[in-house]
Amino acid sequence: MTPQHTDCQPSLDDLESVAPALRHFTATLVQGTLWRNTDLNPRDRSLVTVAAAIARNHAVQLQPALDQALQHGVKPAEISEVITHLAFYAGWGNALAAVLPAKAVFARHGVAAADLPPVACEPLPLDEAAERQRATAVNANFGAVAPGVVKHTTDCLFLDLWLRPALAPRDRSLVTVTALVCAGQVAQVTYHLNRAMDNGLTQAQAGELLTQLAFHAGWPNVFSAMPVFKDVFASRH
Amino acid sequence: MTPQHTDCQPSLDDLESVAPALRHFTATLVQGTLWRNTDLNPRDRSLVTVAAAIARNHAVQLQPALDQALQHGVKPAEISEVITHLAFYAGWGNALAAVLPAKAVFARHGVAAADLPPVACEPLPLDEAAERQRATAVNANFGAVAPGVVKHTTDCLFLDLWLRPALAPRDRSLVTVTALVCAGQVAQVTYHLNRAMDNGLTQAQAGELLTQLAFHAGWPNVFSAMPVFKDVFASRH
Amino acid sequence: MTPQHTDCQPSLDDLESVAPALRHFTATLVQGTLWRNTDLNPRDRSLVTVAAAIARNHAVQLQPALDQALQHGVKPAEISEVITHLAFYAGWGNALAAVLPAKAVFARHGVAAADLPPVACEPLPLDEAAERQRATAVNANFGAVAPGVVKHTTDCLFLDLWLRPALAPRDRSLVTVTALVCAGQVAQVTYHLNRAMDNGLTQAQAGELLTQLAFHAGWPNVFSAMPVFKDVFASRH
Repeated sequence: MTPQHTDCQPSLDDLESVAPALRHFTATLVQGTLWRNTDLNPRDRSLVTVAAAIARNHAVQLQPALDQALQHGVKPAEISEVITHLAFYAGWGNALAAVLPAKAVFARHGVAAADLPPVACEPLPLDEAAERQRATAVNANFGAVAPGVVKHTTDCLFLDLWLRPALAPRDRSLVTVTALVCAGQVAQVTYHLNRAMDNGLTQAQAGELLTQLAFHAGWPNVFSAMPVFKDVFASRH
Repeated sequence: MTPQHTDCQPSLDDLESVAPALRHFTATLVQGTLWRNTDLNPRDRSLVTVAAAIARNHAVQLQPALDQALQHGVKPAEISEVITHLAFYAGWGNALAAVLPAKAVFARHGVAAADLPPVACEPLPLDEAAERQRATAVNANFGAVAPGVVKHTTDCLFLDLWLRPALAPRDRSLVTVTALVCAGQVAQVTYHLNRAMDNGLTQAQAGELLTQLAFHAGWPNVFSAMPVFKDVFASRH
Repeated sequence: MTPQHTDCQPSLDDLESVAPALRHFTATLVQGTLWRNTDLNPRDRSLVTVAAAIARNHAVQLQPALDQALQHGVKPAEISEVITHLAFYAGWGNALAAVLPAKAVFARHGVAAADLPPVACEPLPLDEAAERQRATAVNANFGAVAPGVVKHTTDCLFLDLWLRPALAPRDRSLVTVTALVCAGQVAQVTYHLNRAMDNGLTQAQAGELLTQLAFHAGWPNVFSAMPVFKDVFASRH
């Protein structure tokens, strides 16, 4: 059994010892230029980077991404909600794998239990008409196919998770769209990108979200998502 | 190099220290209500949960999932075959990553070599007509594109793996469909869900499989699979 | 917290203690017969296996794959470039997770800094007409959707990464197509498989690439890629 160091984040010197070009692109581009494009501010970019690390199950990326997110003004309560949100939108195992890295980072930053969103909280107001429309459509389509999925989608996601106030709906949407692009799940981008833009995400921000994800989810996932983003943008003009 | 604890399963207390809501949903829903829906029994649900952890490469999930599977009556021989089956249907690396966690769990439960299916065993009877039809169609379609794939598909998969008796064909199908949904590979769901239902999986079980996978593979993979499940169900009425 | 040994490569004896059939298929097939098919030579097969381990984020597979690649004549400089290439085509986190395993293997094989490709190097000649055509098409399609993606695609990928001389364009293409099949990203296979064949990959090699990937990326990803490979082969006759 050969130990593989999978639980360590490589330093820039480690990168240099294997691939000087990777060190160069990392230092100048992924940790440099990328963050200075103002179409997406550093706080949003950090939120996306954390969400991508969880959605892609890149444990070695997560602690530095979380440290940076806290420095860029993402609140511990928001990180807590991102992890819970991605349990549903990336898979339970992805969220669980984020718990110990987040615990370590929270401890270093002195985050206390009182900083975290409680289980029970005053929900955001529900847009009842929109939710009735969504629930009716999903139930008509899939109610007889997977009744359990349809029920949990309403009860857990749209009447509970999405109404939790510690992460703004626009940020939940940003995290959700990130998860979809990271998983190559373009089929649901139309619904969730529209929802994101209804929740306040601008076209320039959505476009620059794709640049951030090109690096963190790989070019192929972004090139598969771009036609859908294009159609959504066109349909809203 | 910052250690990341990627090889540890977080406890419910760890969850509480990062995301009380995630602890709540985990304890009440994913470890609670979900298992009491009778459309899919706990033994099948455990088989699916183990297969999903391997297919999604969620090593931290695997030991608890295996412990629970043994408690729910999945036999060690069946777990052994699930791992081998997923080498082909999820990728060799996914199966290899499951070996050491399974070895540790087997040791704790006193599983001995005699409990495991041998390499050579009396194969299940082959439906020669159906296999001839499948092999002819695949060969006509892809024989000149990737002759090695076509040959191994017949020799290794349909004349060997699928005939190994320690995992019932219906359970192999359940594991295969799980792998497809977990990977977002809807293109092959039509063939394998039909095969699963030919092998005895009911519509109610297939629907509830999707509920189990919504949590373990994430909502997006399940929402992409539901239209295909719907079409397969309709085509069989 | 239960340690999970996720950072260890299981031995054949470990496989025997969990799944004798998996040990059998691994020893006779994946480490045996597969490598003796001459449509793809061992050096290319190793390059593909390393790329698949990185693209699939299979850290436990990577050290043995790298050892074998060096034995089969893949140069350290080529491995270095594969890792950098996959930062763009599989995601930054996938490349970073490969750094410490590669560092350990390079140390064992006495690879020195002078063996690695420098950041600055004389670029390969650019096919200016083909690049102008590509850039014009992508800009027309997505320039207003995600201007940052379009700009980085030109500046970082096609005017920099693809022109780095330490990995031949045909090998970069082999690695890129591997990343696409491993991620189930068939939408971009048409462009990149054509590019691979323009760069010298033969149809027999491309077909046997799929056999290698059936084992390392799983049957479903390969069965989803085969129709696209078939169409590309037909379109070039």
